[in-house]
Amino acid sequence: MKNPQLNKHGELQHLLAIDGLPKSVINHILDTASSFVSIGERELKKVPLMHGKSVFNLFFENSTRTRTTFEIAAKRLSADVINLNIAASSASKGESLLDTIDNLAAMHADMFVVRHATSGAPFLIAQHLNDTKQHHVHVVNAGDGRHEHPTQGLLDMYTIRHYKKDFSNLTVAIVGDVLHSRVARSDIHALTTLGAAEVRVIGPQTLIPSGLEQMGVRVFTNMNEGLKGVDVVIMLRLQNERMNGALLPSTQEYFKQYGLTPERLALAKSDAIVMHPGPMNRGVEIDSAVADGSQAVILSQVTFGIAVRMAVMSIVSGSHG
Amino acid sequence: MKNPQLNKHGELQHLLAIDGLPKSVINHILDTASSFVSIGERELKKVPLMHGKSVFNLFFENSTRTRTTFEIAAKRLSADVINLNIAASSASKGESLLDTIDNLAAMHADMFVVRHATSGAPFLIAQHLNDTKQHHVHVVNAGDGRHEHPTQGLLDMYTIRHYKKDFSNLTVAIVGDVLHSRVARSDIHALTTLGAAEVRVIGPQTLIPSGLEQMGVRVFTNMNEGLKGVDVVIMLRLQNERMNGALLPSTQEYFKQYGLTPERLALAKSDAIVMHPGPMNRGVEIDSAVADGSQAVILSQVTFGIAVRMAVMSIVSGSHG
Amino acid sequence: MKNPQLNKHGELQHLLAIDGLPKSVINHILDTASSFVSIGERELKKVPLMHGKSVFNLFFENSTRTRTTFEIAAKRLSADVINLNIAASSASKGESLLDTIDNLAAMHADMFVVRHATSGAPFLIAQHLNDTKQHHVHVVNAGDGRHEHPTQGLLDMYTIRHYKKDFSNLTVAIVGDVLHSRVARSDIHALTTLGAAEVRVIGPQTLIPSGLEQMGVRVFTNMNEGLKGVDVVIMLRLQNERMNGALLPSTQEYFKQYGLTPERLALAKSDAIVMHPGPMNRGVEIDSAVADGSQAVILSQVTFGIAVRMAVMSIVSGSHG
Repeated sequence: MKNPQLNKHGELQHLLAIDGLPKSVINHILDTASSFVSIGERELKKVPLMHGKSVFNLFFENSTRTRTTFEIAAKRLSADVINLNIAASSASKGESLLDTIDNLAAMHADMFVVRHATSGAPFLIAQHLNDTKQHHVHVVNAGDGRHEHPTQGLLDMYTIRHYKKDFSNLTVAIVGDVLHSRVARSDIHALTTLGAAEVRVIGPQTLIPSGLEQMGVRVFTNMNEGLKGVDVVIMLRLQNERMNGALLPSTQEYFKQYGLTPERLALAKSDAIVMHPGPMNRGVEIDSAVADGSQAVILSQVTFGIAVRMAVMSIVSGSHG
Repeated sequence: MKNPQLNKHGELQHLLAIDGLPKSVINHILDTASSFVSIGERELKKVPLMHGKSVFNLFFENSTRTRTTFEIAAKRLSADVINLNIAASSASKGESLLDTIDNLAAMHADMFVVRHATSGAPFLIAQHLNDTKQHHVHVVNAGDGRHEHPTQGLLDMYTIRHYKKDFSNLTVAIVGDVLHSRVARSDIHALTTLGAAEVRVIGPQTLIPSGLEQMGVRVFTNMNEGLKGVDVVIMLRLQNERMNGALLPSTQEYFKQYGLTPERLALAKSDAIVMHPGPMNRGVEIDSAVADGSQAVILSQVTFGIAVRMAVMSIVSGSHG
Repeated sequence: MKNPQLNKHGELQHLLAIDGLPKSVINHILDTASSFVSIGERELKKVPLMHGKSVFNLFFENSTRTRTTFEIAAKRLSADVINLNIAASSASKGESLLDTIDNLAAMHADMFVVRHATSGAPFLIAQHLNDTKQHHVHVVNAGDGRHEHPTQGLLDMYTIRHYKKDFSNLTVAIVGDVLHSRVARSDIHALTTLGAAEVRVIGPQTLIPSGLEQMGVRVFTNMNEGLKGVDVVIMLRLQNERMNGALLPSTQEYFKQYGLTPERLALAKSDAIVMHPGPMNRGVEIDSAVADGSQAVILSQVTFGIAVRMAVMSIVSGSHG
């Protein structure tokens, strides 16, 4: 099946996944974002690129943080934003997902920012809009199940490019619960596409999906070995709910084996940067000394994230079906 | 008592109910809406008619869908929108309804869009604002108890007029749980006022209010007989909660007797249109083949609904007390 | 420690408490508010003073009413407003308060309006922003624990000044649950700073904090004595939850001893004004005849409150670190 996120001219009309995105499209997004980074620092933070457009935040799964970043990005593009907490809405009245989508599209929506607990939901929505020729509506995936979180992947790439310029010599380590992480999946696809020299994944055997090596990734279960000589460390958030299951021992035990401490970070290159998608669990996956240390670029990720989302929204809303 | 929704010049200052609205006012709303329909399709969807005005969505009863349509309409008129979920607010702090209203009016509100589980609540609010000479605040009823849902009634009329041009030769059937439906009540008043040739109501005896014939309506309990030769079929949503009571057998039984299937729809005129206020229960009151069929104009209702709400909001906010 | 709400030029960069605010700063806020009062009455209620700025309503404690007043004030200043109900957000994901703050600041926020159940939380946030040189973000306290509610205190002063012109001859009585009232605390500091002739506090012994006399306040447990000859009566809301504890007898008993009735009000000066921060408990702390009577200025407080919040927001966002 044709990739529904690109139109027939190869332009980005929806952002659903990093998987399948050509390098040129990723670079176009990052270049566009770079022009938006300075806007946040100006006295007047708004540009009129989406003035008069209606952006719907469709959060079938609650996430105040992520919703906020998209809301700010849309408002800085001068769009009107409508927040819909769908969990509390028609979904509970027995309406089907696609009926909800058709209804909102009929209100002349221009964009759906979709968060959903089910992998593939934004893909399903975009495919349906394409099939029914509702080309005026663009879909941006704000995280779907364990699948992808493409804007997080893109802002991570923006951050790495900002600090390291070139991907071709970089060794990047992604540490933690890769099995349940849509961020990890998006990052791996992006790093591979952009030509990182080596992508490593570090975590307990139980939290590493099998067959990951076929994605061009080196797997380490020993943290100290995995960190040796890396340029970039991407820490993943440990979901508290995993602790209740059989997958992990206690958080103390986890921190002892996979927590990023200053001692461990010293194994990486001396100019290595430390990233985290937030919110952080201090003392679980990351030590406060590292989180607040000079190598951490975690708050830069947040700042760049707004610019990257502005770039994605303005690019897809400027494309045609 | 004087109709509180019209000022002394007979202009619409609040929209509370279709009941009591002169034909000329209804037509003025529909004509105004028609100028707004094209706005939704433009690149720039905003007009400055309510720039600087503050619209408060006062939803004492939760309804994300309806709140969204009013929020979009207000934003396309360039108003500022404040969403208040009052169920979770001061109401629970023991404050009286009218104290809440006076407080919000004192913030120089321009409009209250009111949804309330109690029939008559928007009427009470409008009457109070009139009595206390707070003429700068206009009330729009977004659904009150079993009473009326006037903007739904108006958008239904807009839709019928769009497809059928003239009301005077039309036979319209309203099907379902008429007893609990504020939509049905608004539709019946509107159709009668606009001079529809015949208004029919179809449903089980237990869901038809007694005395309906006095509103100029023909009642059918047999679906096949009721649909014969009609130009317009308005399906009502079956509230799931009715099923738990003694009023109805199972949903399967209901669908068998009153569900709109292609076979049943064939009894209506060949160019009959099918309407539904949404959200639909597919397989309960309507068959998917009909909902997605060529005679369904359900998504057009949604699109027209935004324009009709823009018309109502701009008309009432332009009136004076 | 230096007062974190003033910058090195003595300008207001955060509004955290009335306590410690110089008289000149209070008067500057009231004078600025006065220019905003008329804006609410204009056809076009907006001024572009904060166009392009991002105001975050950070409500760690739910309060629809207060959030609404800040949202309106910010929108009338043309700011973009982001509402965050933090109780339901990252706080529950184990993130620390200051990590949340740093994250939002990294999104280039311009202002945090903070409501928190813990006394001192806005102070902590402002101190942290100052310490980390994030001077672009300004904090406004929208109520913290039992500590202060400075914008309520300022709008109360605006109201008193509006009706009584000069503070130097005024006797003001604050009546009710002073112990738990942040409003009372802000009012006492403001009245003292502005040079009111006498500030009285009236309430049951159990609801009067000890040592209040050292704030320059006269304490009365007998309502009739306390009201004699006063110019201004500020009634406090009785929190229903206090009734469950051992601090108070029944609401009927409370009303009998401390409820403001027309008879009691007659003990004050004949031109005394009656104030209440809302929402009112009619029949508990205030009789309806008084609440709706000609001496009540309760709805004026609400109107002035928007102008005062506009003044505070525009002043702090115009200051530099």
